[in-house]
Amino acid sequence: MKLLISVLLSLFLNVINVNSQIYTSNWTSINSRPLPSWYDSVKFGIFIHFGVYSVPAYSDGGYAEWYWWNLESGDDNNSTKQWHGEHFGPNFKYQDFAPMFNCRDFNANDWASIIDKSGAKYVVLTSKHHEGYTLWPSEQSWGWNSVDVGPNRDIVAELTKAVKNLGLHMGLYHSLFEWFNPFYLSDKSSGNPPTKEEYVDTVLMPQLMDIVNSYEPHVIWADGDWEQASDYWKSTDFLSWLYTNSSVKDVVVVNDRWGHGCRNTNGGFFTGSDAWLPNKLIDHKWENCETIGFSYGYDQFEPAKAYTNSTILIQKFSQTVSCGGNFLLDIGPDAEGTIPINMQNTLLDIGYWLQINGESIYDSSPWRVQNQTSSIWYTTNKSNGAIYALVFEYPESGQLLLNDPICNSNSQVNLLGFKSASKITIQLPKSNDQPGITLNLPFASPQDYPPFVYVFKLVGCN
Amino acid sequence: MKLLISVLLSLFLNVINVNSQIYTSNWTSINSRPLPSWYDSVKFGIFIHFGVYSVPAYSDGGYAEWYWWNLESGDDNNSTKQWHGEHFGPNFKYQDFAPMFNCRDFNANDWASIIDKSGAKYVVLTSKHHEGYTLWPSEQSWGWNSVDVGPNRDIVAELTKAVKNLGLHMGLYHSLFEWFNPFYLSDKSSGNPPTKEEYVDTVLMPQLMDIVNSYEPHVIWADGDWEQASDYWKSTDFLSWLYTNSSVKDVVVVNDRWGHGCRNTNGGFFTGSDAWLPNKLIDHKWENCETIGFSYGYDQFEPAKAYTNSTILIQKFSQTVSCGGNFLLDIGPDAEGTIPINMQNTLLDIGYWLQINGESIYDSSPWRVQNQTSSIWYTTNKSNGAIYALVFEYPESGQLLLNDPICNSNSQVNLLGFKSASKITIQLPKSNDQPGITLNLPFASPQDYPPFVYVFKLVGCN
Amino acid sequence: MKLLISVLLSLFLNVINVNSQIYTSNWTSINSRPLPSWYDSVKFGIFIHFGVYSVPAYSDGGYAEWYWWNLESGDDNNSTKQWHGEHFGPNFKYQDFAPMFNCRDFNANDWASIIDKSGAKYVVLTSKHHEGYTLWPSEQSWGWNSVDVGPNRDIVAELTKAVKNLGLHMGLYHSLFEWFNPFYLSDKSSGNPPTKEEYVDTVLMPQLMDIVNSYEPHVIWADGDWEQASDYWKSTDFLSWLYTNSSVKDVVVVNDRWGHGCRNTNGGFFTGSDAWLPNKLIDHKWENCETIGFSYGYDQFEPAKAYTNSTILIQKFSQTVSCGGNFLLDIGPDAEGTIPINMQNTLLDIGYWLQINGESIYDSSPWRVQNQTSSIWYTTNKSNGAIYALVFEYPESGQLLLNDPICNSNSQVNLLGFKSASKITIQLPKSNDQPGITLNLPFASPQDYPPFVYVFKLVGCN
Amino acid sequence: MKLLISVLLSLFLNVINVNSQIYTSNWTSINSRPLPSWYDSVKFGIFIHFGVYSVPAYSDGGYAEWYWWNLESGDDNNSTKQWHGEHFGPNFKYQDFAPMFNCRDFNANDWASIIDKSGAKYVVLTSKHHEGYTLWPSEQSWGWNSVDVGPNRDIVAELTKAVKNLGLHMGLYHSLFEWFNPFYLSDKSSGNPPTKEEYVDTVLMPQLMDIVNSYEPHVIWADGDWEQASDYWKSTDFLSWLYTNSSVKDVVVVNDRWGHGCRNTNGGFFTGSDAWLPNKLIDHKWENCETIGFSYGYDQFEPAKAYTNSTILIQKFSQTVSCGGNFLLDIGPDAEGTIPINMQNTLLDIGYWLQINGESIYDSSPWRVQNQTSSIWYTTNKSNGAIYALVFEYPESGQLLLNDPICNSNSQVNLLGFKSASKITIQLPKSNDQPGITLNLPFASPQDYPPFVYVFKLVGCN
Repeated sequence: MKLLISVLLSLFLNVINVNSQIYTSNWTSINSRPLPSWYDSVKFGIFIHFGVYSVPAYSDGGYAEWYWWNLESGDDNNSTKQWHGEHFGPNFKYQDFAPMFNCRDFNANDWASIIDKSGAKYVVLTSKHHEGYTLWPSEQSWGWNSVDVGPNRDIVAELTKAVKNLGLHMGLYHSLFEWFNPFYLSDKSSGNPPTKEEYVDTVLMPQLMDIVNSYEPHVIWADGDWEQASDYWKSTDFLSWLYTNSSVKDVVVVNDRWGHGCRNTNGGFFTGSDAWLPNKLIDHKWENCETIGFSYGYDQFEPAKAYTNSTILIQKFSQTVSCGGNFLLDIGPDAEGTIPINMQNTLLDIGYWLQINGESIYDSSPWRVQNQTSSIWYTTNKSNGAIYALVFEYPESGQLLLNDPICNSNSQVNLLGFKSASKITIQLPKSNDQPGITLNLPFASPQDYPPFVYVFKLVGCN
Repeated sequence: MKLLISVLLSLFLNVINVNSQIYTSNWTSINSRPLPSWYDSVKFGIFIHFGVYSVPAYSDGGYAEWYWWNLESGDDNNSTKQWHGEHFGPNFKYQDFAPMFNCRDFNANDWASIIDKSGAKYVVLTSKHHEGYTLWPSEQSWGWNSVDVGPNRDIVAELTKAVKNLGLHMGLYHSLFEWFNPFYLSDKSSGNPPTKEEYVDTVLMPQLMDIVNSYEPHVIWADGDWEQASDYWKSTDFLSWLYTNSSVKDVVVVNDRWGHGCRNTNGGFFTGSDAWLPNKLIDHKWENCETIGFSYGYDQFEPAKAYTNSTILIQKFSQTVSCGGNFLLDIGPDAEGTIPINMQNTLLDIGYWLQINGESIYDSSPWRVQNQTSSIWYTTNKSNGAIYALVFEYPESGQLLLNDPICNSNSQVNLLGFKSASKITIQLPKSNDQPGITLNLPFASPQDYPPFVYVFKLVGCN
Repeated sequence: MKLLISVLLSLFLNVINVNSQIYTSNWTSINSRPLPSWYDSVKFGIFIHFGVYSVPAYSDGGYAEWYWWNLESGDDNNSTKQWHGEHFGPNFKYQDFAPMFNCRDFNANDWASIIDKSGAKYVVLTSKHHEGYTLWPSEQSWGWNSVDVGPNRDIVAELTKAVKNLGLHMGLYHSLFEWFNPFYLSDKSSGNPPTKEEYVDTVLMPQLMDIVNSYEPHVIWADGDWEQASDYWKSTDFLSWLYTNSSVKDVVVVNDRWGHGCRNTNGGFFTGSDAWLPNKLIDHKWENCETIGFSYGYDQFEPAKAYTNSTILIQKFSQTVSCGGNFLLDIGPDAEGTIPINMQNTLLDIGYWLQINGESIYDSSPWRVQNQTSSIWYTTNKSNGAIYALVFEYPESGQLLLNDPICNSNSQVNLLGFKSASKITIQLPKSNDQPGITLNLPFASPQDYPPFVYVFKLVGCN
Repeated sequence: MKLLISVLLSLFLNVINVNSQIYTSNWTSINSRPLPSWYDSVKFGIFIHFGVYSVPAYSDGGYAEWYWWNLESGDDNNSTKQWHGEHFGPNFKYQDFAPMFNCRDFNANDWASIIDKSGAKYVVLTSKHHEGYTLWPSEQSWGWNSVDVGPNRDIVAELTKAVKNLGLHMGLYHSLFEWFNPFYLSDKSSGNPPTKEEYVDTVLMPQLMDIVNSYEPHVIWADGDWEQASDYWKSTDFLSWLYTNSSVKDVVVVNDRWGHGCRNTNGGFFTGSDAWLPNKLIDHKWENCETIGFSYGYDQFEPAKAYTNSTILIQKFSQTVSCGGNFLLDIGPDAEGTIPINMQNTLLDIGYWLQINGESIYDSSPWRVQNQTSSIWYTTNKSNGAIYALVFEYPESGQLLLNDPICNSNSQVNLLGFKSASKITIQLPKSNDQPGITLNLPFASPQDYPPFVYVFKLVGCN
């Protein structure tokens, strides 16, 4: 009903607002919308998984945010059921964790500041994961949201404000489905596809519109798409409203998880699978959502070795950007609202690397060649014409052969952040305009090298 | 939608089930249904207020089940707010009481047994009070019901089974409105009367049909009627379905709290105000819902003197039945699920009295005169033709003048439960067929008298 | 050490305070002290069992205050272990109940007022039961007392003040032993009798002296005596100090539970077994500590029928006083600090009875004959010379034969609280000065009889 | 008493065990004992602060393990009081944290494994900090230990077993005093110095002997020494027993915090102040107890920048060993029993460095010169005669001048862990046997350098 009113209202508004682009509720129209440019430009965002699952913070080597599902439905060897029983007793329900989700140390400005120092330019927070618990006071999730039980705070509002204050883009993840919402289960059991849409009409649509109207997010990151086709989810209804009528219609970007079969086909940027790293150029804007450890939500049991070190992460980041993707790196704060220090350290490492090498990332484009072997990757920056080779290993021989750049005698190469006075010289191929150069790299004292991934900037090459 | 399907289905069923009475969705039709006879026959039921409010169990001399409202909206002198703050702190929300509603000692068979011993023949349990928390796993109250948080048990199911096992009738109280349900608040703010009916369509109707279908109650006791007219509540839609199509259509009785203006006008038995004691014959079946103390829900702070003693309660019971009413006496178990012993004692007292005097109550009818002064009340039993005078004070003079019975020399009078061998003699009026007799009452040893209220049985009188 | 200093100090003080009686540390001296007179005069006290056991409030038909012992050591069929496991899980320790002992509704003035209305003149509160948890901030029970964990209140102080404000005597129960105190267990395992006395020196003695010095109780009610001889407990050391040097030396009374073999032999008033009702004259002051239900500590599971009604309790009270005893009736408040209403009702009933019949109880003495059959008991009051016959059944015949009083024609008999104008007449025996009279008792309207136990006052008889 | 028996027993045993060294209770005798050799040999241990303070895990830039003291006595601006009130309310006592100290993820084998990977060879766990809460079931701390409240586990036993299983030495920190133990406070208020010693006799001595007898620790790390002189603490009584009679008399080492004035004077190894880094040779074995962040106990509020990075920590470690000290690095696990990943990462970094450079640390001795400037430090290893220069900065010039080694033409130098094939050459001084050499260091690809601190091994030099 609310949706219907909105749609009618929007039709009316469209009549009088002739300058505005109108998108209608079908994928052809939705897919025709150009992606707002800020998104491709920034390259790097931070994903945050935070919810009631942050309390048990357990998985048996899997995803801690799936705790409830694992508890009810059984994971491998029923390890979650067993662990739960041992630690909380058989009568302790998942909902009983909610009052323990106290967020007592949560400070949105601290989070925003740490993210800002990482060099990320946007944030995507789980406004609602599959558990259904919302981090804002959703009318459609009465008694199961962060204002009614747990911290008694509007986490979405606090973080949105803090993130925007620092000039970053704020986005919201939202799960289309909920594992145990009785409305959804009832719809689901009504047929395949469902013959009822109570859940969508009374929960999902009002919630999606609510977060847009209340928090004006710049990213809507849908998930839980696989369960039903987009017809059931009424995804194009929502997106046509979002693109045509909402207050963020000019700036918002969305992903592609809007229904079974939509991924890499419909919607905004593509996301493929989780931690998608195609290692080839994708001719549609895409995003790689990666984790530092394994789990997205905080898993207190991940050992140190389960966390990827900063060098490997920056390599993945480099590969992602080379192939046209954005890098959305996930952190999982704990139930007190603290970002574990090792995750903070990782963010600071990336921020340090970006301070040195940001020009190869921000506003960059894929080059005509993505990579030479798996450890040399390229980007280019159209504003200055430079080509950047992002190199994972410094050659023991002191000579780095780059097969693809076409340089000449005026071309110049330098290693970003190299503190030594020694200079790199270029050996050109014997015949002009042939691709391929050899760089003679100096050795230096260890502290003179830049950290993590070596970025060689080629000026005057093609 | 669910309702619509049911209504359509019912129309279809009615075509093929010609024997069944069809009631349509208007008060004229609804009110035309005769009251199932069991209800008038049994006279005595037990009301149970049990919910999250049983945890704080506090009121400042008022109704403990209104705690949440008092907390949020302020009662006299803001006493609930103050007490709450002192005992639980300012950040402790009402919902935080839910996990403390443990019902750990709740045993439905014990409750049923105690009620059975009271002589009551039906039970009315708060399936949902104004707080919205349901004592059964309502899909429409996900996460805010007794299976999802608190005891993790289906209280309605357990008590229904136990009560029915003892041959008693099980009924369910259900609040039409919820103080803080966002759907309801949204409807309410849409206009006066509301222009939206989301709450009714997605919460109230599904819940009412769910409790009928799942538990087959013999009483539906609506409340919270005053907030809106019955059009908004769609009360006649529900009642036409209940009377025509539900599995309990032949046995169920309902009260009159189905919308603003309905009390003592529409629906089933009348309830007037709480603890209604009209003290005159009401020519429509009615019910007096009384409390032992003051509060309906358990109030830990009521002092001993706030509880009415058994004698006074049985006097009220007598007055009620004399005037054609049923007596629905409320108990408020504590959060562990225990019925306080003093309430048990009261129930046992009434049961003891009914063992002696039950023939003046069960299956009785109002007599042609209800009372002579405020301490002599009459009932009659059509099956044996006896008249019963329920007398509150044993005369000091040994002579009891009854103004209204017309007796003759064959008439007999005895005091039910009188253990003495001494007999009562009747003094008739001087002229025949004149009303009025004087009973010469013997004195006896104290233990020979029956307890609480004296019931004189008149045989052969009119 | 503390004790030694006190003893030395007391010797010094005794030298300069020649008027004071000195009691030395042996039973002959201790037993030679006359009992302060107030104690025999008041007859009626209230016992209060209150502690961490008030939280689970469970026993399988036994004593709820023994919960911890039953949990660890197993009661019949291990029912406590099983119930505990089902309700709190196997990892929930007894100590985990302490934070739940919130006493949030505890109001000492309310307790004192209720007790005052019962007609009781003294109170005995469990300052420490066998669990070791103290209701005052004992230095010797750091972290295991009511100020450190649970209510954060000094229960002993609050109740002492409230009780004394109403002019009643305040007493303290104190368990000599503690089930699980490691010091005690270590002493116990050192030999039989123990060769070590660490527990007594570092815990028991300091605690006993602390409660005397801090709260000046008028009763010290020792318990847990059976475990060791009084030599180990150093009971005579304590009592000699208490009687000779303490600030309550002139007023304090103690019981006889000061070591294995002490009961009914050494100390102050005798207590025999719990709920001791010897039904014959005991030639040493004694006390009957009774319960209303079965358990001393609150047992949430006791059904209504487990509670003794007021009539039977007042009969036991009558028997006790007739035989020279005091009646110490126990109540068990719940963990919120509320005295269950049914217990309040019982206290009010007794208070009502005492308002009518107090002269037969307070300041009374045993008569030369205690009883005639088990339902006629006597007391006498030396101040007015009256004899009181406390009669449990009003004779059906209207004639009450009393075998033992010697009356004459000037003797008068009346029934206390009898509201009827009818008079009792006396039939004397045929020869003068022979014992035995027959009372001709009138019958009356039921409300004219006094409640519970009938007290006939004989004036001018011997 | 227990102590006395032990002392007597020990005297008896000494008579029959003539081979055993007897230490008597005075500092001269105690100090005469040689330090067991294992301690100096291993150089590196891990300190663990773990207790009830791990629950709030808060300090305002100070020491989180001092929470209780800060709460009661006020720290700067009363920040702990204020934070506590805001988060837990004014009625929440420090003891109420104990049930929240759940250690639910604590796995002693995991801890031991992580420590083993750090290259540390001993562990020192806080068996009891100033709060008095013990991590083992101490009889003297009944109800205030990890078996009675909180995890219900013997943390000391579990970790001791796990650590010993990996061949490491297990040690125990033990606070001599307790802030709020009433016995101690009572002693303290008895005089200056105290005239009573109840706390020492009934708590401290039994506890110290208990941990020795029960867990056979190889280190006893006393603390809280400053409050009283060692006479009060009876430190020499304990140490003479420990050195002469205990089962660990041949292997145990202790520190110097045994009473006011003892530090750097009496006992075993010296500890000076916390994080003591004298930067000169100390002619008595000493230890530097350092932290990774600032607080010893877990402080959830320390930001990433408060943690020292691995390079700086390994520099401090190098300085410490050069000057004859051991390095005891502290970690603060959280209340669930997890070692924060960033601390794990630090330990793994140090372990990685020791795998490469261990020969310069383990079994090393201070060289005749400790350092040349603040960034070149020496150790030597007597077993192979090598000298190790631990260098913090790799020279930009490629030339490293070492002023003090005396080398000759047969001397050899290499950089431990250097992966490049390039060799270091030595420039000798012009005249023979003069100190001072210049090393010509090659440059290399960055990944060929060893991490953190560069260790040059000099063979054939003096």
